[in-house]
Amino acid sequence: MPATVLISEVGPRDGLQSVARTLPLAHKLAWVTALHAAGLREIEVGSFVPAARLPQLADTAAVVDHARTLPGLTVVALVPNLQGARAAIAAGVHKLTVPVSASAAHSLANVRKTREQMVDELRRIAALRADLAPQVGLEVGLSTAFGCTLQGLVPEDEVIALAEQVVAAGADEVGLSDTTGMADPAQVRRLFRRLQAAVGRHAGAAHLHNTRGLGLANCLAAFDVGVTSFDSSQAGLGGCPYAPGASGNVVTEDLVFLFERMGVHTGVDLHRLVAARAVLQRGLPGEPLHGMVPEAGLPPGFVYADGRQPDADPLRAATAGLA
Amino acid sequence: MPATVLISEVGPRDGLQSVARTLPLAHKLAWVTALHAAGLREIEVGSFVPAARLPQLADTAAVVDHARTLPGLTVVALVPNLQGARAAIAAGVHKLTVPVSASAAHSLANVRKTREQMVDELRRIAALRADLAPQVGLEVGLSTAFGCTLQGLVPEDEVIALAEQVVAAGADEVGLSDTTGMADPAQVRRLFRRLQAAVGRHAGAAHLHNTRGLGLANCLAAFDVGVTSFDSSQAGLGGCPYAPGASGNVVTEDLVFLFERMGVHTGVDLHRLVAARAVLQRGLPGEPLHGMVPEAGLPPGFVYADGRQPDADPLRAATAGLA
Repeated sequence: MPATVLISEVGPRDGLQSVARTLPLAHKLAWVTALHAAGLREIEVGSFVPAARLPQLADTAAVVDHARTLPGLTVVALVPNLQGARAAIAAGVHKLTVPVSASAAHSLANVRKTREQMVDELRRIAALRADLAPQVGLEVGLSTAFGCTLQGLVPEDEVIALAEQVVAAGADEVGLSDTTGMADPAQVRRLFRRLQAAVGRHAGAAHLHNTRGLGLANCLAAFDVGVTSFDSSQAGLGGCPYAPGASGNVVTEDLVFLFERMGVHTGVDLHRLVAARAVLQRGLPGEPLHGMVPEAGLPPGFVYADGRQPDADPLRAATAGLA
Repeated sequence: MPATVLISEVGPRDGLQSVARTLPLAHKLAWVTALHAAGLREIEVGSFVPAARLPQLADTAAVVDHARTLPGLTVVALVPNLQGARAAIAAGVHKLTVPVSASAAHSLANVRKTREQMVDELRRIAALRADLAPQVGLEVGLSTAFGCTLQGLVPEDEVIALAEQVVAAGADEVGLSDTTGMADPAQVRRLFRRLQAAVGRHAGAAHLHNTRGLGLANCLAAFDVGVTSFDSSQAGLGGCPYAPGASGNVVTEDLVFLFERMGVHTGVDLHRLVAARAVLQRGLPGEPLHGMVPEAGLPPGFVYADGRQPDADPLRAATAGLA
């Protein structure tokens, strides 16, 4: 069993794009600071997309600027095209993440390009990265890899072929995303094993949703076959505005608990994570926040994977006076 | 991978004992009928305990009487002592389930007996069964097998030793219960493997809770090591009135979806299961009902493990006009 996993927090991007209101910049910076303080070491802080399309994320460059000051943090931004990649590199991100849809229908709806056009665009982004900033990471998440609400079934052979194409086009890593919450554990194991067989060390993160309650079971399934990097979102905020019925990322709070309770180190402190949740809640009053661990608290006798004792206060006390 | 699992519905016992109101008998019978119509073939319909202690279940004999008329159904009742076992056998149950706490503190709180006294009581129940009704099943669920809110850690060696004692005392099967929602997947795998090694074919069901969101991940973990019988509760109703902080059984709707989506046959129809949920809702208006699948519906392209197509209507339509 691997002793450590990386939890990559996607709430500031995937979460906030799914909330109609815009979290004011000052709140966003405070939230990212609090997430970092909780021990998260990779945060997807926003997208470089036209402000008219996602006004909630129009201030991403300012968030990147702040996030870069947080020690040890890998600052990630989503870029759907070359123009976005150029802006993200200029802003100083450490890693670009490019969404490539495995479903033909979702590709057109999400980025207004065919899958082949997206692979071409990725090749241009990789060339730009090589020119301007070879130290910047370049990862691809294959959206709708486990099924698509627009198209239904997404053939596994197409997913794997696309993964090979994006690695050939220059991506460092390619992960699999259950954008619409359709995956099951058997499928997660099967597809990640095929991905590893096809692209080896380029196999990347699991980005799983909790739409039908299977989020943590699917994370466990991915972990069982050797995946060590997991996207999740504080309070389960998230979805995809261009995939009907997509809802609910895996909840970071619950995912951290799952791993730490199993003895797998995440580096995340649950009391501080709940304090970050309170910062989010203050910025988006009334927004429904998901997650079972923040409600139930830690069980008696809980210790972190590294043997550390949790704070003695109940978990919910971390939010006292902040709601 | 085993092709089939048994889902044992515990809502009418474990769920209703946790609801302060009493579901009127007519509603109870209609609910049990609807659960059976959904394809469930084992239902724990109540407890034989003093009515003063759990007035919500005082009509269990009448529920048994009705449930026995449903074809192919194994009718189970919880009995905490010899007197309850006598009443349950007289009522005509097919299987007795006896709770034996792995935690010393929970044993005293739940049944007012030490663990040793409960094993003695079980021996008397087994003798009664052998005398009066050898065809009736006798299973034990080891409560708080994964930890206890009253006591904290429950040593695994004590759990396994107790499992051996209850089999020696005459139980056909012994399962493990995460009464207080403290289990993690690594622990579930470890403890069920030890149980199987210790008691072989007498190893019984997984009874897991969703208190901290790990319910389905823990079921997956149990399934992975060969467990084929799972307790769950419609709408996640349940908990334990004598274990502080215990809440939320695994949700039957989501558990059925997990297995069927993985290609594992449960025999349960999700549209009919949601119709049963509506019957419950009518009887307990305002009671919070849990579960993600009833909200999100089935994904496009879903088929049951046996290849059957689901009804074309959205899942939620099964409750139309019934809420």
